[in-house]
Amino acid sequence: MALTPEEIQRYKRHLLLHAVGGQGQAKLKAARVLVVGAGGLGSPLLLYLAAAGVGTLGIIDDDTVSLDNLQRQVIHTTASIGMDKVESARETIAHLNPHVAVETFDVRLDAANAADIISRFDIVADGSDNFATRYLVSDACFFAGRTLVHAAVGPFDGYLTTLKPFARTADGTLYPSYRCLFPEAPPPGTVPSCSEAGVLGSVVGVVGTLQATEVIKEITGVGDSLAGRILLYDAKEPRFETVRVGWDPENPLTGLEPAIFDLSVHRISPEGVPAETD
Amino acid sequence: MALTPEEIQRYKRHLLLHAVGGQGQAKLKAARVLVVGAGGLGSPLLLYLAAAGVGTLGIIDDDTVSLDNLQRQVIHTTASIGMDKVESARETIAHLNPHVAVETFDVRLDAANAADIISRFDIVADGSDNFATRYLVSDACFFAGRTLVHAAVGPFDGYLTTLKPFARTADGTLYPSYRCLFPEAPPPGTVPSCSEAGVLGSVVGVVGTLQATEVIKEITGVGDSLAGRILLYDAKEPRFETVRVGWDPENPLTGLEPAIFDLSVHRISPEGVPAETD
Repeated sequence: MALTPEEIQRYKRHLLLHAVGGQGQAKLKAARVLVVGAGGLGSPLLLYLAAAGVGTLGIIDDDTVSLDNLQRQVIHTTASIGMDKVESARETIAHLNPHVAVETFDVRLDAANAADIISRFDIVADGSDNFATRYLVSDACFFAGRTLVHAAVGPFDGYLTTLKPFARTADGTLYPSYRCLFPEAPPPGTVPSCSEAGVLGSVVGVVGTLQATEVIKEITGVGDSLAGRILLYDAKEPRFETVRVGWDPENPLTGLEPAIFDLSVHRISPEGVPAETD
Repeated sequence: MALTPEEIQRYKRHLLLHAVGGQGQAKLKAARVLVVGAGGLGSPLLLYLAAAGVGTLGIIDDDTVSLDNLQRQVIHTTASIGMDKVESARETIAHLNPHVAVETFDVRLDAANAADIISRFDIVADGSDNFATRYLVSDACFFAGRTLVHAAVGPFDGYLTTLKPFARTADGTLYPSYRCLFPEAPPPGTVPSCSEAGVLGSVVGVVGTLQATEVIKEITGVGDSLAGRILLYDAKEPRFETVRVGWDPENPLTGLEPAIFDLSVHRISPEGVPAETD
């Protein structure tokens, strides 16, 4: 993946970095990253991954832009209200960096399409806003052997982690899966989403830019991976905290007695709630 | 500052937050924020402050958009190369949120114009990339009694703090000034700027979105101010650290024997280096 003279000028500030350089920039150009959700987290993810020169960005979202998205979803514009989010995001990315190929999926990720879509990409960033999609994305990434940079936000806080539950740490144990961290989804209705509870717009920006940074680190090999650790942000204090997390032998995906062998437990009801039985 | 029905819908996710609500949103609408520099930090600052509904954004920058800015300066586009940065930023903001009034200053901030420009705004966010401007902005904010949310980035790291050196902490001592933190600028040429040393683009996004969050907190009164603390980010680890900082009785601006009484020490040479004597 050689860089053109125009790209060398565009990415000059990365090429000057010894830890990135031409090799790292070529890795970014060769990379295929799937961003799940073109909303609050997806906006900074897509903007900064596109600016950084990720060669191919996949975007999956079945929603359209609405006025109340624009308080935090800065990749969209007032003129794009009513448009498919994937198309609105594609336009903004094209204006920022025409070298990025964008592949859009204007569908809801479900048990039937997840394996196929995720297998087309090297690495996945989850910017979805509900537990059903988070379990689906993380299980599908495990089965496909894809690294997942996962994040979620609350009204004034958020967290992120990198998941590679198919890989082993230096001491030989598996890295944790999403199901090690969250064994069960909270009952429907108990944890409101951003759209229900409200969220300080820039907090989503902080977590999404952190997520973009971890994706770039995974691709280029710069610095240490966040696998095995959760980075928590509390905007009010403000305070960040890093918590170590490990493999849970009782988790149903990668535990000692696994109970999940495919995505069939993820048939999602119209309300977005996973039906745990078929 | 009543909100229109269109604004109520647009800012719904803020209005749902008890700590922000209609009162906080009205404060954002009434606020006048000056962003110094429409570059790497300025891009996320302006995008998220505009999305949040800050009523008036001032932008000062005398630079034009260049190709190698676009690796991190996501408010600009490839089509805006060659355009004044303040105009390019104004266009993007207008597309995102037409309710924001933008006042542009296509000049270099200097000792002659700083007091006048800064006094027109309630709060200042410094996204400049050189020590001369940082001393000038921070001294001018002190003399004008304006809160300054200051940030700076290195290749893989950055920091931010909120400066209110005109105010006192609960125990009666002054909050630190920028000159308490950095008594002297490093000799010219020893600390390269991002343009010279390179920078991971998304790292600037993380620090700029954190800066936007602190500006919004200062305006709305949500959470605790970062005054008296520096928040440091190391992207490679990744790790955040908060360091308490206090007033330095020997600092020449607010110390026991002050030596700086106006902006006359800030006559800036064509190289951007402050001439410490007239």
